[in-house]
Amino acid sequence: MNIERITQKLRVLLGERLSVSKSDLDLHGRSETHFTQANPDAVAYPKTTQEVSEIVKICAQEHCPVVGFGVGTSLEGQALAPLGGVCVDFREMRAIRGLRQEDMDATVEPGLTREELNDELRATGLFFPVDPGANATLGGMAATRASGTTAVRYGTMRDNVTGLEVVLADGRIIQTGSRARKSASGYDLTSLMIGSEGTLGLITALDVKLQGQPEAVTAAICAFETIDAAVNCVIETIQLGLAMARIEFVDTASVAAFNVQAKAEMQEMPHLMVEFHGTEFSVAEMAETFGEIASEHGGLGFQWAARREERDALWNMRHNAFYSITQSRPGCRSIVTDICVPISRLADAVNETIADIAASGLTGPILGHVGDGNFHSILMFDPENQSEFQRAKQAAERMVERALEMDGTATGEHGIGMGKLHYMEREHGVGWQVMGSIKAALDPLNIMNPGKLVPPKS
Amino acid sequence: MNIERITQKLRVLLGERLSVSKSDLDLHGRSETHFTQANPDAVAYPKTTQEVSEIVKICAQEHCPVVGFGVGTSLEGQALAPLGGVCVDFREMRAIRGLRQEDMDATVEPGLTREELNDELRATGLFFPVDPGANATLGGMAATRASGTTAVRYGTMRDNVTGLEVVLADGRIIQTGSRARKSASGYDLTSLMIGSEGTLGLITALDVKLQGQPEAVTAAICAFETIDAAVNCVIETIQLGLAMARIEFVDTASVAAFNVQAKAEMQEMPHLMVEFHGTEFSVAEMAETFGEIASEHGGLGFQWAARREERDALWNMRHNAFYSITQSRPGCRSIVTDICVPISRLADAVNETIADIAASGLTGPILGHVGDGNFHSILMFDPENQSEFQRAKQAAERMVERALEMDGTATGEHGIGMGKLHYMEREHGVGWQVMGSIKAALDPLNIMNPGKLVPPKS
Repeated sequence: MNIERITQKLRVLLGERLSVSKSDLDLHGRSETHFTQANPDAVAYPKTTQEVSEIVKICAQEHCPVVGFGVGTSLEGQALAPLGGVCVDFREMRAIRGLRQEDMDATVEPGLTREELNDELRATGLFFPVDPGANATLGGMAATRASGTTAVRYGTMRDNVTGLEVVLADGRIIQTGSRARKSASGYDLTSLMIGSEGTLGLITALDVKLQGQPEAVTAAICAFETIDAAVNCVIETIQLGLAMARIEFVDTASVAAFNVQAKAEMQEMPHLMVEFHGTEFSVAEMAETFGEIASEHGGLGFQWAARREERDALWNMRHNAFYSITQSRPGCRSIVTDICVPISRLADAVNETIADIAASGLTGPILGHVGDGNFHSILMFDPENQSEFQRAKQAAERMVERALEMDGTATGEHGIGMGKLHYMEREHGVGWQVMGSIKAALDPLNIMNPGKLVPPKS
Repeated sequence: MNIERITQKLRVLLGERLSVSKSDLDLHGRSETHFTQANPDAVAYPKTTQEVSEIVKICAQEHCPVVGFGVGTSLEGQALAPLGGVCVDFREMRAIRGLRQEDMDATVEPGLTREELNDELRATGLFFPVDPGANATLGGMAATRASGTTAVRYGTMRDNVTGLEVVLADGRIIQTGSRARKSASGYDLTSLMIGSEGTLGLITALDVKLQGQPEAVTAAICAFETIDAAVNCVIETIQLGLAMARIEFVDTASVAAFNVQAKAEMQEMPHLMVEFHGTEFSVAEMAETFGEIASEHGGLGFQWAARREERDALWNMRHNAFYSITQSRPGCRSIVTDICVPISRLADAVNETIADIAASGLTGPILGHVGDGNFHSILMFDPENQSEFQRAKQAAERMVERALEMDGTATGEHGIGMGKLHYMEREHGVGWQVMGSIKAALDPLNIMNPGKLVPPKS
């Protein structure tokens, strides 16, 4: 590729909305975790789908990589540019194109963040439920098939997007799905694009489902003597069909970090944090049933948070866990793992992971979305200490191996990017080759986010 | 293709489980709706995934069409063999390979029907919720992305299958997804295969999610003066977040057919049929709230059915609607339409359809899954009367056009097959070409269910 010719053409299209400044390139070539800096050659800030299409056409002519960018909160290096090329930053595309309260849906641009959308929705009585913690963009969340704390009730991005506008690798624009709540019309291109991490196209608009704000909400935290007791409490709650809106597990090490950073006073034991949404009555009924189940499993020190401020404090603490934990060891970096297993194997997976981390001499607090069988360890390492980094990588590797042996997956919600590429063959076998065939069919020049997700071109 | 050579090879593989008898070919070449008979050249009854793989390899060598077959309840000609070839009937593959109560999931073979699965599950306290009415096979339901009366609560096949074993067009076997409840690991091949109607591969096993049988269930029917009143009642109920397990609409003409066939005594007016699942208390609360909303919209003659036998009678009547309606005019055939629109447009769509059918001089009762915005008209015609058939086809065409103008879809749950192929360009535009590219990448010889869903090869 000839990057001078590309930037010339893009400058004609975008004017000042094309940047090659060092600071911009650096901002778009960094990651929150352990990946090395990988800058693009230029950053484009399109305002319209048509501009995105023109950018991709120019890049296709020049066989130049195209990397989509939201706000850079991805954890597996999805937005890095290891082969350079043009970063397409969607910050100028954050409009709500349509909001239909009667249909409880909206059409939004990819650069809008989930908090911005929910702020706009506040007065309507509706909200967008997917909550990965970070205030990510909706385009990024769709591209990585994000989920988070509320997936146990409301599903992941896969369940909350009914259609997409996508710019393909040759600049063609498609609309997938429709505004109908379901469809049996042809291949599910919406689902194919969700989780494709920009390797098949760039998402330029999303049709999202909205939910009615529940009449009543209540949340609680509760401690357990053992991880098994906490997990068995979760299993029993699910089997009873209790519609939890959230159910989160934090281990003793995570609690210790909360106590320091959030000045909380939680007992240093494994905890569950739960939330119920419904009518006044149904929430009270669910809370009571959950309390009984938790007590049977030795649940201790129950604290209910019915008031909004109390709940916000609780979930802010949970959402800031990554920062609390990494700040507990200044100067460290981290590998954030993300396995998901069938729930019957969850206690085993967590216990074996804790033992393994301890044996490796590492610090790696564990927390997760236990209703889905999904949990993370934040494996910390001193970037100056190669041995520690290697041990952290090996522990992360063993977590994934454990998950796959348990019929689970290498990633519940963070995606593949560059960080999990080497597990794909093992997890999917021939299926990974099929992904490569689809990629080759839709992006024969391999310009869309190259080096991520699919098998390297041989 | 050389069908003699193919049947010879298949006979070696399958022995008596290969049939070329006229009666078998006829059984596999018929449809329940208006399609003309289209027989395969042979019918294979494999017992294992390995045998399916061998069958497909033999067919690939000979460029011979391969058509999957469950029990033949598809409504758009998906299982017909317009180009002949080998029909793969899954009736010998109906095992439950695994049932994990703690994980609330099961691995089943594609020939098992949903009623057979639920019979097996009865003692466990679990059930499989997707209910398209017909006692279809689970493989067929996945291949057509089926849904039905319970989708408003439990989702479609897309939402209830976490993984698939699939034999590809070259005989390779892949496992998509995993038993984890969610995953962000690569392209969503499970969703790509669900709804692909056998054009990308043959499903040989499914990992399905199961639900806990609710503690309490209650159902009701209720009449409304107008279609608008019934639909507005539904919209308000959804906006309040009431978790209906089913909410079905039937028009006056459908009620008349029920009254004759099921010896019911319903008022000849539009009706809603609803069902709630939950605890004793939450069901009572939901039923009361629904009763209030319905009354505000002029709901009349409420009848609650808390007893199982009463509910079964209610839903049997609904499930047999297709037969009640077609039997109301002996000797007739039917076009079963299946549009789905945003719910704000539902009343318009139904009213315009009823007016259109009346103006066409046809009989076409309407019923549908109104919680999803999905409804059907069963357009009857005398097979001897070409003018009537043409008018029915045109009315069906206008229904789809109306749905697409309303941002909806040509098919909510019946799929494309041969019957809706000519709407694909209009509904998906360039997206249909993308489907063709994926098809060409995964089935370059075009042997998997040719003539369905994707653009014809030019």
